[in-house]
Amino acid sequence: MPALAVLLEVLNWTGAATFAASGALVASRKQMDPVGFVLIAATTAFGGGTVRDLLLGRPVAWLGTPGLVLLAALVALLVFFTAHRVERRFALLLWADAVGMALFAVLGAEAALAEGASPWAAILLGMMTATFGGALRDVICGELPLILRKEIYATAAAAGAALFVALTQAGLERGAAILAGMGLAFAIRAAALRWGWSLPAYKPRPGRDYPNHP
Amino acid sequence: MPALAVLLEVLNWTGAATFAASGALVASRKQMDPVGFVLIAATTAFGGGTVRDLLLGRPVAWLGTPGLVLLAALVALLVFFTAHRVERRFALLLWADAVGMALFAVLGAEAALAEGASPWAAILLGMMTATFGGALRDVICGELPLILRKEIYATAAAAGAALFVALTQAGLERGAAILAGMGLAFAIRAAALRWGWSLPAYKPRPGRDYPNHP
Amino acid sequence: MPALAVLLEVLNWTGAATFAASGALVASRKQMDPVGFVLIAATTAFGGGTVRDLLLGRPVAWLGTPGLVLLAALVALLVFFTAHRVERRFALLLWADAVGMALFAVLGAEAALAEGASPWAAILLGMMTATFGGALRDVICGELPLILRKEIYATAAAAGAALFVALTQAGLERGAAILAGMGLAFAIRAAALRWGWSLPAYKPRPGRDYPNHP
Repeated sequence: MPALAVLLEVLNWTGAATFAASGALVASRKQMDPVGFVLIAATTAFGGGTVRDLLLGRPVAWLGTPGLVLLAALVALLVFFTAHRVERRFALLLWADAVGMALFAVLGAEAALAEGASPWAAILLGMMTATFGGALRDVICGELPLILRKEIYATAAAAGAALFVALTQAGLERGAAILAGMGLAFAIRAAALRWGWSLPAYKPRPGRDYPNHP
Repeated sequence: MPALAVLLEVLNWTGAATFAASGALVASRKQMDPVGFVLIAATTAFGGGTVRDLLLGRPVAWLGTPGLVLLAALVALLVFFTAHRVERRFALLLWADAVGMALFAVLGAEAALAEGASPWAAILLGMMTATFGGALRDVICGELPLILRKEIYATAAAAGAALFVALTQAGLERGAAILAGMGLAFAIRAAALRWGWSLPAYKPRPGRDYPNHP
Repeated sequence: MPALAVLLEVLNWTGAATFAASGALVASRKQMDPVGFVLIAATTAFGGGTVRDLLLGRPVAWLGTPGLVLLAALVALLVFFTAHRVERRFALLLWADAVGMALFAVLGAEAALAEGASPWAAILLGMMTATFGGALRDVICGELPLILRKEIYATAAAAGAALFVALTQAGLERGAAILAGMGLAFAIRAAALRWGWSLPAYKPRPGRDYPNHP
């Protein structure tokens, strides 16, 4: 069904571009050079899909798609040359990341279903596709991953993937299920950002440093 | 042989539960929310096995086992609600981690042998199964991995895996070899924790920060 | 053609040894014990090749080569016992890392071409083979990866891999193409180290800590 294929392509390229932008914005926070911008952008854009494809045992998608890698590189360079004009780079980072997360949560689940995974595995793989690239970005740059911060993040990805899978299992047309799942994931994340929603954190007391930590 | 299969299942679920607890305890040190507890618990419990399965080129085990993932999530939530009652959370973390390490060192080697790996590769894969999940947990949370600290850790995992492989090659009944290997790994690690055993660390002088480190 | 196979073997073992040395030197900066030296050395030496092999969907090379792993371990122990004699350990680290990077950039691209990858994918995989082990080493040890610092690094790896691929596509004898690619990668990196070459970094202002960063 060509219309669905076109939709998937458009969403995939959009997700890669927005995740690349979020990666480049983290690179700007770390004052990297253009190559660092490109590397972090590519890690963010393709890290989650790589893990999904490895777990599914299928060829890694971006290796065969030069245009997609080029797009991530161009977005990274665009951010390198224009980010100083943005007043609130951190807010932009969070919103670009939210769009990428919502798209990849559902695209990851869709790819898993298409590969014959169970609904359960599809939801997990969708959440991993949505979150792993950003987690890699943050770990490499020495930040605590967004996914582990007190805002609602992985929850939104899981909810979007789950809605998509449920609607697909219920027989809904796939394109509609994709858009509904993405809408839910983005809505939850956007509400969390907008109104500061978060889950209660564990409080009692923080850990001391590991004894003898070098 | 069903008895062996039952033993492997019981040990695998026990290892996943104890590693999940150690992950959740690190999450408590970082004051994460419940979702963070679950994610770190799952990373710790399934990270090592995932790497082993990818290196062996076989399907990743936990993707097809919803119950095991659910167990890790439940353990994480249990820790979230009860950890404040524990006086010495860090000690508990170390001991839970020690049990998971001992079990996964031998289970990893066993899975590798069952997949046709050489004895040498089985020992390496056992050590990696035992250590990689905890290393991921620590790197994601910004701690220096336990495995790299001055206490004896990877050594215990390698010794347990090696004893299991040697006894199996010598023709010992597999269940007995498994329990012997786990016992050795846990005994070495427990002795290191109890009596502060460690190998001599490199001393001369610490490195300076990388020049120009941003 | 046995001569080419011998050349590839020699270069591969040399690359593993120099990367292992660079890993052990980072371990010395962190004052680890001998096991930590061996683990970090092995991670540095085999991390890039592991990712390449997983992405190519072929068996991981080092699992079947005990001698290569043993070599990395021996180099690590040699560094443990002798590094205090070296006046400028950090310079040695950078140069050992530069040799490993140059060798693995081309060896990674060569392996990818041999596996039937496109020229484009071969260049990317060469760059990843050259950089991923060192990046893992730095992330695990809590340093900002060399690859993301302001010096020219990934660029050198990509240039070497690209020259090798271009010369091979142009019909040059493979051994000559390998040596040319390695020479270019090392020359660019050496010049960057020697004369402090770097690309301009993004300047405006560093990022603040994430709000609410635990």
